Amino acid sequence: MNEGPLDHLIRMFAGLPGLGNRSARRIALHLLSRRETAMLPLARALEQAAKNVKDCGICSNLDMNDPCGICRDPKREQSKICVVARVSDVWAIERTHAYKGLYHVLGGLLSALDGIGPEELQLQKLQARSKEAGVEEIILALSATVDGQSTAHYIADQFHGSDVKITRLAHGVPVGGELDYLDDGTITTALKSRSAA
Amino acid sequence: MNEGPLDHLIRMFAGLPGLGNRSARRIALHLLSRRETAMLPLARALEQAAKNVKDCGICSNLDMNDPCGICRDPKREQSKICVVARVSDVWAIERTHAYKGLYHVLGGLLSALDGIGPEELQLQKLQARSKEAGVEEIILALSATVDGQSTAHYIADQFHGSDVKITRLAHGVPVGGELDYLDDGTITTALKSRSAA
Repeated sequence: MNEGPLDHLIRMFAGLPGLGNRSARRIALHLLSRRETAMLPLARALEQAAKNVKDCGICSNLDMNDPCGICRDPKREQSKICVVARVSDVWAIERTHAYKGLYHVLGGLLSALDGIGPEELQLQKLQARSKEAGVEEIILALSATVDGQSTAHYIADQFHGSDVKITRLAHGVPVGGELDYLDDGTITTALKSRSAA
Repeated sequence: MNEGPLDHLIRMFAGLPGLGNRSARRIALHLLSRRETAMLPLARALEQAAKNVKDCGICSNLDMNDPCGICRDPKREQSKICVVARVSDVWAIERTHAYKGLYHVLGGLLSALDGIGPEELQLQKLQARSKEAGVEEIILALSATVDGQSTAHYIADQFHGSDVKITRLAHGVPVGGELDYLDDGTITTALKSRSAA
């Protein structure tokens, strides 16, 4: 197949998550009518990010520096490590400004279906980190899905008998959520974990 | 503001049509975990397309060559010019394989709201092309919106009294469309333009 540069570009965009052929064509045309102001700057931004964004050797967060800004920040509570599946989860928690400890990005979740076992995740590093002086609590901030919960179980098992406290996020009614739209499992959990009003 | 390369990349993606902050973050993370196989190839594809894709000097279509492949193709009917607003409309019509004539991309539609007047569109070129030997029909394939129809009116007026036949796309019920979901205007038009069954 003799694929032209435009078709090639559209195919590359269509392969990105959340984009299809139609949106890829729309983006390609948008960029081609703004070559100097959007298209070449986007190409440079991709190259710059590919070159300068690094995986943190400690927590696997993405940052310009290794170790990352969070791991290097002496003001963060060094006694807490929040375990998340992906870097986007770090960003989601950071946006809340509700957590001042450290992170550990697993790089995914255990999944029998996708064939992801413990060795594919950053679990050995977590073990090593947990043995460092001063680590008191590991918070499992994993999604409330089958994979998320089996990963949480697996990690909790691994730390069975250790001095480090293992906690997990509370389950319940999302703030602003209507009961009517919630699944039964969430309502059941929220009922069981009810607290004094 | 001290914006890092990752934030910069996300902001550039978020500025593309159809993307927001959340989808831009998702795409950036997807690319950062595939730097060699997706991220740098995308950067190169953008540069290649920016360099090699040209505006056709005759019809304003996008192509690797100027004049474009359609304008240079001797097998296309040189007597018909299909006027469209954007390059994506050329692609949409080409996908049907139902049209074998030439195209003319206006580069937009007349719009009082957006301040787009006749001089912003490729109308003078269309006039010049229409006077070339052999041009018999100009097909106005403009969308059935206020701007599309006022642009069609404007062009039809310009060619008033000329030998070139001006036609426009039929309006009616979309093929596969349910009457129940159609707006009143379409049903009215389809009724007025009804044909023998």
